[in-house]
Amino acid sequence: MAGNSKVLIIGGTGYIGKFVVEASAKEGHPTFALVRETSVSDPVKGKLIDNFKNLGVQLSYGDIYDHESLVKAMKQVDVVISAVGHMQLKDQVKIIAAIKEAGNVKRFFPSEFGADVDRAHAVEPAKTAFATKARIRRAIEAERVPYTYVSCNSFAGYFLPGFAQPGAAAPPRDKVVIPGDGYPKAVFNYEGDIGTYTIKAVDDPRTLNKILYIRPPKNTYSFYEIVALWEKLIGKTLEKTYVPEDQLLKQIQEAPMPKNVGLAIRHSVFVKGDQTNFEIERSFGVEASELYPDVKYTTVEECLRHFV
Amino acid sequence: MAGNSKVLIIGGTGYIGKFVVEASAKEGHPTFALVRETSVSDPVKGKLIDNFKNLGVQLSYGDIYDHESLVKAMKQVDVVISAVGHMQLKDQVKIIAAIKEAGNVKRFFPSEFGADVDRAHAVEPAKTAFATKARIRRAIEAERVPYTYVSCNSFAGYFLPGFAQPGAAAPPRDKVVIPGDGYPKAVFNYEGDIGTYTIKAVDDPRTLNKILYIRPPKNTYSFYEIVALWEKLIGKTLEKTYVPEDQLLKQIQEAPMPKNVGLAIRHSVFVKGDQTNFEIERSFGVEASELYPDVKYTTVEECLRHFV
Repeated sequence: MAGNSKVLIIGGTGYIGKFVVEASAKEGHPTFALVRETSVSDPVKGKLIDNFKNLGVQLSYGDIYDHESLVKAMKQVDVVISAVGHMQLKDQVKIIAAIKEAGNVKRFFPSEFGADVDRAHAVEPAKTAFATKARIRRAIEAERVPYTYVSCNSFAGYFLPGFAQPGAAAPPRDKVVIPGDGYPKAVFNYEGDIGTYTIKAVDDPRTLNKILYIRPPKNTYSFYEIVALWEKLIGKTLEKTYVPEDQLLKQIQEAPMPKNVGLAIRHSVFVKGDQTNFEIERSFGVEASELYPDVKYTTVEECLRHFV
Repeated sequence: MAGNSKVLIIGGTGYIGKFVVEASAKEGHPTFALVRETSVSDPVKGKLIDNFKNLGVQLSYGDIYDHESLVKAMKQVDVVISAVGHMQLKDQVKIIAAIKEAGNVKRFFPSEFGADVDRAHAVEPAKTAFATKARIRRAIEAERVPYTYVSCNSFAGYFLPGFAQPGAAAPPRDKVVIPGDGYPKAVFNYEGDIGTYTIKAVDDPRTLNKILYIRPPKNTYSFYEIVALWEKLIGKTLEKTYVPEDQLLKQIQEAPMPKNVGLAIRHSVFVKGDQTNFEIERSFGVEASELYPDVKYTTVEECLRHFV
């Protein structure tokens, strides 16, 4: 199972992509990152790319809108992982086309890294964003490209510091706003662990043509439970305000872009419970912490202790 | 000039759309809103639609993905205003196709309601979003559809309460974070006024095939000037933290969707000064408060006084 496939990451300088690149290099895969030549001199991306080089990552110059560069990059590898951002999701059809032409790619991981878009109950504008990811899934399946879809749920490093209160750098110490009744369970995974689990799946036949859910038991909490855990850690009770679903839906409708996107994701995760409101069945999915019990993942409690 | 064109609004239940619908009805235009039949029973949209009916707005059932419904709705009107959301921007090609088929539409306002996307210097992910709007402009021009592009700059009702500090319900009273050096000027317009100016342009030959910039002098402020005005109103000096451009670019790169979108817009508006860093030339644009001096627009100072 411990294969050594060569891995190409597209979108490696993005939010989650850099963790996937690092994990791939650290797990010993010959690792390639598709980057634009202009990114090397970019003040922000350039530093990330320097770090890639230090990790032994090889750069393939190009981008998804340059078909030749994409095919050339793919011919060097066995597995392609896309971590492209929101605005490029639909253009992953170009990656699929290049995979078909290259002919040698054993597996494709499209850019998912969120909810299972086939099972979520999101309202607009998240609904359309999820539908875009779902359409890419259908295109992959129609083209019979072998795949793994990584459903990693919430990013702990983004959600936990502020309990999903936008803009907060640390959890609240006085008041907290809880969407819905606070009961549906969500899952918060540290971004580094998401990278690691993704890479573990690369050569694993158990994840072939399956959804890899990252749902470790110690990272599965309702909003209310997270607040309770935080209250325990700081030894203080917070003043709680609950936002009923109808009020949250009104907020979504009344907010401009991009605030409405964040609120709609919050609705899907914390009111609809879309990260946990279904059983993972063998026919379509596997769970990462079960498949890879050796991975010592960072727990929600460990994350929160940093802020005490 | 005070024509009485019949107006169809697409996306009328959205953030800015509802203000356009209201303005159209109040200015005496026979007004139609394209709505989905399912929206009527939606708890949030249903209330907006009830309000439309009270204003005498006629409903056209359909949506942009139902070509026949779109053509039928257009045949009833003279002018089509799109206020569709972010995720539907690119699908406005379907509106253009229906306009071509209907053959009777005298003018089209695509969904803009932000920066002038042909003159902005946004970084990703805002860059791609702006490019989508620009592509729709080019499609309109290629099809020779008469147009007005409304460049309304920032929404005062969204930006001013929190000085663009995400999640804040009122301006800060202790500390404020200022992007860049705080000097570039931005423009903050009350949403109701954006609706009014948009509707004023409907029958105005001066706005035909032009960009209508909403840049009233009393709403044009640098971030620093807004803070200074607020300090004057509350009689207190705030602690100011400046975020240099390189740090803001790093934050954008390191933030996941949708936070990165908000930060990238902030960079374009407050660091690049994209709302005011060019002159409006007659060849491509006109300014709303000059064209319609009778409109008593709500000023930034009036908005801020609500929060004192």
